[in-house]
Amino acid sequence: MHANNEIGTIEPISELSKITKEKGVLLHTDAAMSVGNIPVDAAELDVDMLSMSAHKFYGPKGIGAIYVKKGVRIVPFIHGGIQEDGRRAGADNVPGIVGMGKAAEIAMEELSDRVKKITPLRDKLIKGLTEKIEYVQVNGHLTNRLPGNVNVCIEYIEGEAMLLFLNKEGVAASSGSTCTSKALKASHVLLAIGVSDAAAQGSLLFSLGRDTTEEDIDHVLTVLPPIVERLRAMSPIYNK
Amino acid sequence: MHANNEIGTIEPISELSKITKEKGVLLHTDAAMSVGNIPVDAAELDVDMLSMSAHKFYGPKGIGAIYVKKGVRIVPFIHGGIQEDGRRAGADNVPGIVGMGKAAEIAMEELSDRVKKITPLRDKLIKGLTEKIEYVQVNGHLTNRLPGNVNVCIEYIEGEAMLLFLNKEGVAASSGSTCTSKALKASHVLLAIGVSDAAAQGSLLFSLGRDTTEEDIDHVLTVLPPIVERLRAMSPIYNK
Repeated sequence: MHANNEIGTIEPISELSKITKEKGVLLHTDAAMSVGNIPVDAAELDVDMLSMSAHKFYGPKGIGAIYVKKGVRIVPFIHGGIQEDGRRAGADNVPGIVGMGKAAEIAMEELSDRVKKITPLRDKLIKGLTEKIEYVQVNGHLTNRLPGNVNVCIEYIEGEAMLLFLNKEGVAASSGSTCTSKALKASHVLLAIGVSDAAAQGSLLFSLGRDTTEEDIDHVLTVLPPIVERLRAMSPIYNK
Repeated sequence: MHANNEIGTIEPISELSKITKEKGVLLHTDAAMSVGNIPVDAAELDVDMLSMSAHKFYGPKGIGAIYVKKGVRIVPFIHGGIQEDGRRAGADNVPGIVGMGKAAEIAMEELSDRVKKITPLRDKLIKGLTEKIEYVQVNGHLTNRLPGNVNVCIEYIEGEAMLLFLNKEGVAASSGSTCTSKALKASHVLLAIGVSDAAAQGSLLFSLGRDTTEEDIDHVLTVLPPIVERLRAMSPIYNK
């Protein structure tokens, strides 16, 4: 992964590609989280393949793209027709492709402004959460992370409970990754970076975007501390 | 296949399902060509699975659906997230899904009108082609076929050459299936029903739809015979 979808850490892909190149191994990076959110240059990363997903940069859902370096041959995964030069069978998703192209064009134009706007909001939210709430740990790299990613563990509380109360306050957040949140398991990413299973249960992921305002951040910092207090008052572990 | 994508023949799926049921074999039918074009009832066909494609009934390209009978479990082909109840990972193609739903709704309303309008145009085109051009064979069942399908072989001519001339006259047709036409091979469907390799090269597929008019049919019947004559005049085999 170029950038992690849960904790937002940007991985040192170009360092990895040096190693894989030396060993003659092809390298693919999943750049779904990074394309459109930070500058991404496949040649600079020196990868052989790089995939992206339109809805991560305000394009339509259900469409993505893969960069395949000249000379690299990929084996089709879906067989049948000869669409996409035989690489993927099935009628082309024309509205999706057009929408993704337009979204990519806009992202190219707006990228540096988006990063400049969102990064300080992210840092304000992280700072505020750690200052206003006890037993908060920030997950992932503090600076080498996606501009729009805030992932924290608020200990002694279930993430799901906080989500319900946040939702009532008009705040959309998630606990664990979107793709697996329904599974109600502790995030494998958090466990892998050494977060305890108990703390991982209290993970909260806020995604900031081009429409996030300073007022939104202030709102979260106002409504979340009392929610935490209320939930902790009911927590037998916290009050032990 | 419920209906063949090249020759339009509607297959006796409910007879097949009797046999598979007796033998305890699950039956899936590809109904991409039939859904929205003829009445399709999964329960009546008595199949376990039935797949469809939105763009075949005026929905967006790049989206389809599969009917899975209650009690039938399918193994996911694309893994990762838990979308679609774990059956297919990946962000849902929301605009595609919504578009397909609306197209299905409209198709349900208009289906019998479409069939009533298109079927006589199909029969007029078939009759006209066989009457006006020598050495024409109609491929597929004459009546038990899709309302919008006309597939003929015009012997002693390459289908591709006719397409170029038809295109100049504002007529869009294809030779072989859309999915494999770029491969420039004789249609495996035509070969399978006993058409000779030489005749299969001269196949023409016309697809009629809700917007096809009687004038369109008359236009094809006016422009195609001289095209055939002109091409046959250059054919060494025809003139031997």
